[in-house]
Amino acid sequence: MKGLLTLAYDNGTLTVLDQTRLPVEEAYVELRTVRDVFRAIETLQVRGAPAIGAAAAYGLAISARNRADDDIEAMLEGIRSDAQYLVRARPTAVNLRYAVERVLDVLLSVTDSYAPSDIIATIEIEADAIQYEDAQTDRRIGENLLSLLHNGATVLTHCNAGMLATTGCGTALSPFYLAKERGMELHVIADETRPLLQGARLTAYELMRGGIDVTLICDSMAAFVLSNGLADAVIVGCDRVAANGDTANKIGTLGLAVIAKHYGVPLYVAAPTSTIDMRCASGDSIPIEMRDGDEVRSFAGTQSAPAGVNVMNPAFDVTPNDLISAIVTERGILLPPFGDKLQALFQSGN
Amino acid sequence: MKGLLTLAYDNGTLTVLDQTRLPVEEAYVELRTVRDVFRAIETLQVRGAPAIGAAAAYGLAISARNRADDDIEAMLEGIRSDAQYLVRARPTAVNLRYAVERVLDVLLSVTDSYAPSDIIATIEIEADAIQYEDAQTDRRIGENLLSLLHNGATVLTHCNAGMLATTGCGTALSPFYLAKERGMELHVIADETRPLLQGARLTAYELMRGGIDVTLICDSMAAFVLSNGLADAVIVGCDRVAANGDTANKIGTLGLAVIAKHYGVPLYVAAPTSTIDMRCASGDSIPIEMRDGDEVRSFAGTQSAPAGVNVMNPAFDVTPNDLISAIVTERGILLPPFGDKLQALFQSGN
Repeated sequence: MKGLLTLAYDNGTLTVLDQTRLPVEEAYVELRTVRDVFRAIETLQVRGAPAIGAAAAYGLAISARNRADDDIEAMLEGIRSDAQYLVRARPTAVNLRYAVERVLDVLLSVTDSYAPSDIIATIEIEADAIQYEDAQTDRRIGENLLSLLHNGATVLTHCNAGMLATTGCGTALSPFYLAKERGMELHVIADETRPLLQGARLTAYELMRGGIDVTLICDSMAAFVLSNGLADAVIVGCDRVAANGDTANKIGTLGLAVIAKHYGVPLYVAAPTSTIDMRCASGDSIPIEMRDGDEVRSFAGTQSAPAGVNVMNPAFDVTPNDLISAIVTERGILLPPFGDKLQALFQSGN
Repeated sequence: MKGLLTLAYDNGTLTVLDQTRLPVEEAYVELRTVRDVFRAIETLQVRGAPAIGAAAAYGLAISARNRADDDIEAMLEGIRSDAQYLVRARPTAVNLRYAVERVLDVLLSVTDSYAPSDIIATIEIEADAIQYEDAQTDRRIGENLLSLLHNGATVLTHCNAGMLATTGCGTALSPFYLAKERGMELHVIADETRPLLQGARLTAYELMRGGIDVTLICDSMAAFVLSNGLADAVIVGCDRVAANGDTANKIGTLGLAVIAKHYGVPLYVAAPTSTIDMRCASGDSIPIEMRDGDEVRSFAGTQSAPAGVNVMNPAFDVTPNDLISAIVTERGILLPPFGDKLQALFQSGN
């Protein structure tokens, strides 16, 4: 798909597609400071768990470039401080922390012989690796998901776990791009995903742009779809998977999972291993970001509710493992119960 | 609540609060022809099953007034033709047909001795009766619902089955107005109800205006609320209840019902007997209105999805009777199984 680039880094500048302006226009913004990167993540110009991980890694490359005149000690201290700052941009997705920690880990090998340019190169190589692996991971997840779908199948999805959420062809949406390459026919029904409408603005947009059949519905129509047998499977991405398989994803996923279970429709979670957090025993310990009420009081900038009305605006919910039919990673398809299998995944060498 | 009037009829003019302009402004429109009334119902300026029933009854009064120069035969024929026209304004709510049929029934008693003014008076008396009974019904449903709630309870609701949906204090929202009168404390969580946001625009608006505690959420947040024990009950209105208790209501109700059942939270349907359609054996025979896709592609004129994306836009869904904890009518609380009890309700004199 020509020209739809989630993010690209070059020489201290991270260019990101401003996703807050889709579908009206494809506008790119250039980020040149760590604060720019923080703001872009916080305001959702760049979003999607894998994409914000890659953005944060490049954010540390920017940090290093902007500190090239410091001595090595001060430079490393500054980068570590920026790392702590960046992981606070959003609390739920674990990829952000994962990517930042990968960069900090490679910096542990820095010796006295390093020049500032070596540190910059070390970070940039690691950030590029994160981005490259992300794209590889997407394809493998897509292959695995595709093996669960038959030709002609219709899949319901929520939010955007597509190209725009990663640096590759997406996680939950990856099988549709692979199917398209191979002439296999799949249909997508996309929840619009209030309050920020990532389904309407991003998923519908990127799938249409990619020539993939997509039908948009409001989130409240999912039960109509599933009760009428109009979808064969539900596939969603995730922001963090706990060690027992409980999965945090965009608000609305839990309801979808309950409804899918009720109607016997399988729910697959597309999960790069970078979103699996073995340090979280269960969903109870995943922090849920509560966002500003104005996101709910308005719709695409238009007031839709009385000014000042009380609002509850959790950005994510946690789907318990017993509502999940499979967790699909780049290393294989995990069926329930998930606990031991997730453990084995990490013991087999991560 | 001073000044918030859903509809008022006087001398051939039906004045309705234009609900499409809430919450931004309280603007009234005057309807002086049957076509005006049809359009107001079709475009949702007046909406809510009981309110559109009353509006249609007054629409026939307008029909009669505008035919006062015809002879009696032509006048009656014209009114009957307008009645057929009005019932087509919206297909799902049965109250529309119910109200129109009540008016046509009283016209059966017209004799040769009637002057046009007698026919006008006959219709206006019946329309006033429908409106008056609607308000009485609301209070009785409110009393019955209130008996199911404890002081301090929090109730989740969907769409708007309040003052703005009836000519009284609402059906599903009626207990909150009664509780307020009595100093009992209840809290409401309102689904915003995409695509037309009746929950955000109307329910949040009328409850705030009435001094009732209300918190707005997106439809996709209901599972978060129910899984976290933040609501004690779900109360919804309805557009048509079939003879077996299956209930058509605003799209999203079915999903809410599945989720409530999963978490053991009771779901109560507030149902004036005028919305019960014993001619429908089950939900399968309730027609579901499919509305224009632009409602999903945008809100209040603001584009939220790619132009021309495929859309599915069912305005209602059907909740099967096994997901309903009680059907609460003005004549009492019906517990499942509903079939025989609904039958008995009508045999005991309707």
